[in-house]
Amino acid sequence: MSPRRHADATVALAQELVSRPSVTPEDAGCQPLLAERLSALGFRIHNLRFGDVDNLWAIRGETGPLFCFAGHTDVVPTGDESAWQHPPFAAEIHADILFGRGTADMKGSIAAMVTACERFLADTPTPPFRLAFLITSDEEGRATDGTVKVVDWLKTQGERIDWCLVGEPSSKHRLADEYKIGRRGSITGNLVIRGKQGHVAYPHLADNPVHRAAPFLAELTAIEWDQGNTHFPPSTLQVANIQAGTGANNVIPGTLNIQFNLRFNTETTVDSIKERVTALLAKHGLNYSLDWQLSGAPFLTESAALVQAVERAVGTIIGSTPAASTAGGTSDGRFIAPTGAQVVELGPLNATIHQIDEQVPTEHLITLSTIYERILQELRTA
Amino acid sequence: MSPRRHADATVALAQELVSRPSVTPEDAGCQPLLAERLSALGFRIHNLRFGDVDNLWAIRGETGPLFCFAGHTDVVPTGDESAWQHPPFAAEIHADILFGRGTADMKGSIAAMVTACERFLADTPTPPFRLAFLITSDEEGRATDGTVKVVDWLKTQGERIDWCLVGEPSSKHRLADEYKIGRRGSITGNLVIRGKQGHVAYPHLADNPVHRAAPFLAELTAIEWDQGNTHFPPSTLQVANIQAGTGANNVIPGTLNIQFNLRFNTETTVDSIKERVTALLAKHGLNYSLDWQLSGAPFLTESAALVQAVERAVGTIIGSTPAASTAGGTSDGRFIAPTGAQVVELGPLNATIHQIDEQVPTEHLITLSTIYERILQELRTA
Ligand SMILES: [Zn+2]
Ligand SMILES: [Zn+2]
Repeated sequence: MSPRRHADATVALAQELVSRPSVTPEDAGCQPLLAERLSALGFRIHNLRFGDVDNLWAIRGETGPLFCFAGHTDVVPTGDESAWQHPPFAAEIHADILFGRGTADMKGSIAAMVTACERFLADTPTPPFRLAFLITSDEEGRATDGTVKVVDWLKTQGERIDWCLVGEPSSKHRLADEYKIGRRGSITGNLVIRGKQGHVAYPHLADNPVHRAAPFLAELTAIEWDQGNTHFPPSTLQVANIQAGTGANNVIPGTLNIQFNLRFNTETTVDSIKERVTALLAKHGLNYSLDWQLSGAPFLTESAALVQAVERAVGTIIGSTPAASTAGGTSDGRFIAPTGAQVVELGPLNATIHQIDEQVPTEHLITLSTIYERILQELRTA
Repeated sequence: MSPRRHADATVALAQELVSRPSVTPEDAGCQPLLAERLSALGFRIHNLRFGDVDNLWAIRGETGPLFCFAGHTDVVPTGDESAWQHPPFAAEIHADILFGRGTADMKGSIAAMVTACERFLADTPTPPFRLAFLITSDEEGRATDGTVKVVDWLKTQGERIDWCLVGEPSSKHRLADEYKIGRRGSITGNLVIRGKQGHVAYPHLADNPVHRAAPFLAELTAIEWDQGNTHFPPSTLQVANIQAGTGANNVIPGTLNIQFNLRFNTETTVDSIKERVTALLAKHGLNYSLDWQLSGAPFLTESAALVQAVERAVGTIIGSTPAASTAGGTSDGRFIAPTGAQVVELGPLNATIHQIDEQVPTEHLITLSTIYERILQELRTA
């Protein structure tokens, strides 16, 4: 380890990971480093490469429920590196703050869990549950050859995760003030409304799909999908893209393309979304084709052993119970929850993720590792 | 003249013009040829070059009302020349049909009027009216340095056209079955609706301009502008282009661009169009910018001397009265009508214009020249 590394093992490991420029879908040597550390703890290492994506499955123990830490080594691009005050892959520490791409999302969490396991297993060499790491390098990109493929592979191995802790940065204002017990689902509709192209001087010979679709669009965007529930805000639809026309001002377009995305909660099902949109298209008599892409169904983990372990651990270490949230985008939890696993997400502050000068206080990494260790301790009696 | 030329003077001149590849805004030597022929008849020649556009103003006579033939030497592009059965600039005649780009739109009409003048002036060397040709090479393109500029120049010369015959191909099924006594106006609105960009997972932090604009768009496209009148069909609006979105399915667009075009008749004014759209934008509380481009106001020439001359001439030569129409796109008549001129349009069949193997029967050119000559004869007593 370089002499520039921090004295604390968690911070030092985070530095090692951040110094590897693993812009999605590159792993850039992060997973081999993790495999080495976990191997030393008795984990069995499976390097799973799907397409151009490196994935790591490491598992330890023979019997008992399976606890899994899920995370990703890939990071979003840096953008203009010269805009960074601290180079994105230098892993510099200034005034007790670690700077770099991936410090918060989510190499810091990975480091925290590795060192948590190191301390936990030193104390508890034979816990009553098994331990695993599911690490991908395809979370920030297409997310097609990462966690979703590892979950498929686990099925073929007859393996099922019971408790899954995702290391995504869940904290808002203070470390561990929030954690996630679920996420909304996400589904995209690619809609093509067909009309008939023509010249604006002869509208009777054409059929403008923009005109046909306008009342439909007004209704679609005004739908109240549900009112949300205790854990989720109401489901929402947003038109992300709309396009029609050749660019010329005298041509009536022949087709209109609309792409919309819904973030939906557990009150609304994929089927009900499809039915409602299809019924509205039929009501307006539109000639269309519609192609759906489901990114993930919503999930919710309520009053389960893992939830209690997280709340107790945070309560013990921080002194206050974290707020359970379901806000925000999607995470790889969407791939793991459908297998029946309890899934929660707990990680550092998300204030600077995907931004220049992404950062995390070194103290947060040290404390996060302590919380993670405490969660494992709580699970001994779960 | 080449030995390949037709024995008839009108057809032969049309061949000469078609063999010059004057793709807009090129004149390719057409106007010099016309100037030579008109000069020989006593026309005074003015070569007016504006920007990269050649225009020809030729005038004959000292006193009396001013009759002007308006036309263009430029043609639309050929597209894939290998798709033509007869090369677009070869001016080949097969089975008494002249093939080539511009044969119908509108080099055939120009040739017909030149030879009509030649015969008319041989019979009537001092008609009681003046004669002019306004020929541009910028009708099929931007139309910014052509007829509109010549009309401005004429104003500076204190010159005003009384009777304007535009040679655009007005015939539908038979030669001279229709002629135009007016055209609808055309105005384009470039509308930008402003919202606030954001992430689809956080719609409360964004403001989707597509959602805001949808009810407006539904109302805009449903407006009944007028019911038309005896001469014009109802005014219509068409959305030609609409665009919003970055291409990503998780970004709420910040702006929505809508380009619409109205073809409007004499029942609806430019001001009323602007007022109505602006009021609708205000009603929907939209944050917008709107930029208007007026291509031309509608015009109508009713029961005037020129109309009577055309109807009598066609009746005499063809045997039936032509139907007065205002259908179709815009023509350069829109620039001439506002000066107070009577404007009508009469030319060959428009079935093949702007298409491959554009064509005109040689007999139609010969007959059209006879009709044009007869119109001049009728105007002697107007
Ligand atoms: Zn992440
Ligand atoms: Zn034309």
